[in-house]
Amino acid sequence: MKDYAVGIDLGGTNILGGLVRADGSVQVRKSIKTEVDGGLDYVVARIAGLAEELMAGNDVAAVCVGSPGPLDSETGVVHDAPNLNWHNVPLADLLAEKLAVRVFVENDANVAAYGETWAGAGRGARCSIMLTLGTGIGGGIVIDGELWRGVNDAGAELGHATIKYDGRPCACGINGCIEAYASAPAVALRMREAVEAGGESSLRADILAGADVDAEVIYQAAEAGDALSREIIEETGRLLGIAITNYIHIFNPDVIILHGGLVNAGEMLFEPLLAKVNELSFEASLKDLRILPSGLGGDAGIVGAAGLAFARAEDIS
Amino acid sequence: MKDYAVGIDLGGTNILGGLVRADGSVQVRKSIKTEVDGGLDYVVARIAGLAEELMAGNDVAAVCVGSPGPLDSETGVVHDAPNLNWHNVPLADLLAEKLAVRVFVENDANVAAYGETWAGAGRGARCSIMLTLGTGIGGGIVIDGELWRGVNDAGAELGHATIKYDGRPCACGINGCIEAYASAPAVALRMREAVEAGGESSLRADILAGADVDAEVIYQAAEAGDALSREIIEETGRLLGIAITNYIHIFNPDVIILHGGLVNAGEMLFEPLLAKVNELSFEASLKDLRILPSGLGGDAGIVGAAGLAFARAEDIS
Repeated sequence: MKDYAVGIDLGGTNILGGLVRADGSVQVRKSIKTEVDGGLDYVVARIAGLAEELMAGNDVAAVCVGSPGPLDSETGVVHDAPNLNWHNVPLADLLAEKLAVRVFVENDANVAAYGETWAGAGRGARCSIMLTLGTGIGGGIVIDGELWRGVNDAGAELGHATIKYDGRPCACGINGCIEAYASAPAVALRMREAVEAGGESSLRADILAGADVDAEVIYQAAEAGDALSREIIEETGRLLGIAITNYIHIFNPDVIILHGGLVNAGEMLFEPLLAKVNELSFEASLKDLRILPSGLGGDAGIVGAAGLAFARAEDIS
Repeated sequence: MKDYAVGIDLGGTNILGGLVRADGSVQVRKSIKTEVDGGLDYVVARIAGLAEELMAGNDVAAVCVGSPGPLDSETGVVHDAPNLNWHNVPLADLLAEKLAVRVFVENDANVAAYGETWAGAGRGARCSIMLTLGTGIGGGIVIDGELWRGVNDAGAELGHATIKYDGRPCACGINGCIEAYASAPAVALRMREAVEAGGESSLRADILAGADVDAEVIYQAAEAGDALSREIIEETGRLLGIAITNYIHIFNPDVIILHGGLVNAGEMLFEPLLAKVNELSFEASLKDLRILPSGLGGDAGIVGAAGLAFARAEDIS
């Protein structure tokens, strides 16, 4: 096995790249702006340039890019990435033309889950389930060290598992997905609704004035003593606990990892979440279960992508 | 590999045994009464006797018993089987004392799912999800030819994934499990509620008189033209479609298999179920998906147990 792999975490605002050792540690990390307005060729050239800079002088097994999806991890074609304005982009081929190593493309949520299981909070897990809490809720599933992508790269859509089939409308067009309750915008919306229904809060004036009161502002207000904000965060924990119990019933995993900004709410989120999981789950499935915040934080994408680069280069070499 | 394995499907009323070829076909099948009242030693002797009869004169790789759970598939201990009055029974060891071959024990729903994927409706599937619709709703998950049992043999509890967290109470103690809507008793209960709410039905008099109007009677009445019975079965299909969409979002499987008595309701159940799945699922995950009735029917347990006997004997030989 080569000493290094390069992992790229491609987002609509930033491209993060890492030169990663075979033990999962990051030797070099670098972040550049994506500059989506420059167009496809320009962005691909920026990714390639970043990868080349990280590879220079090192023995690199492969490059893997964690990209917004849906995409085809076999062919490396990104089907649809709205925040990049990409549609059916053969990203792996475009990069391979410019780079002297193999290039793989994987879904960004899958990549982060793989990273956490390979070298983060879930190290050594037999079955690790990860939820990425952000603008949406992404998911990743790693079983016996292997990513489960689904037969069409369309699996692990954990944010769209329903918790209430006639519940809140989700951006995906259906109702009651956990994403419709616990994504960052959903948390902000539930807070706004509570205020509009007459709830007292230190954020009331700002919210009614139309200010952008996001999930982070809400849990900071909760920490500062705002009771309504605290109730919204705690309810988010309980709702996540319900969704997570579903994954426990289905997978009986040993590790569940929560990743993303909302995790910073800490005990206020985790305490009601764990209480709900303990209340709803079968005893046997709690025996070896750990529910953990991300161990890699912002590095999960580059580490996971590099881990998959090592694994896939090995598989086909 | 040996020519045969013996699969045993252990239930509270009957014990079904099969001598099964390595291609999954059943050479000999035999059913005997369980006679639970005879006690543990008596029932174990009956299982052993049945296995010996099936093995006689044949080259058998191993015996595997599909048992009600929860159980430990590694040690072969059945933790709890209420309809056998068993608690922490070391079934594999008790049988191994009496038989000249290796004995394995697996959860009955897992066994049926394995059978359908190995040699039934799901043959060749990369990811096969099975729901067993009966008094409860059991589940099984087979990925890349391997049963996924969970890290504590407590996974694949697909009947207890919620579709509505504040919904109908389930026998397991929580609310909104699909089992609370679509198990055979739940179908009967929903019909009773509809009649008690004033619904007209050819079954009305029987139900109000307290007769045992079960799910089979209801779909037969529906076939005979009873509109309320038809609506109950169709609604069951839609609710199953909601639960199945969850598994699709999570696994993106290529095969979903429905097993059990309710499957006999046929198009009346499947048509609204498939419509709901098509409405709620992401397009990519429908590309290779087939939703099928059981191919093995009542043989799923013996075939699956035999398949696992072959696989596990191979693993440890």
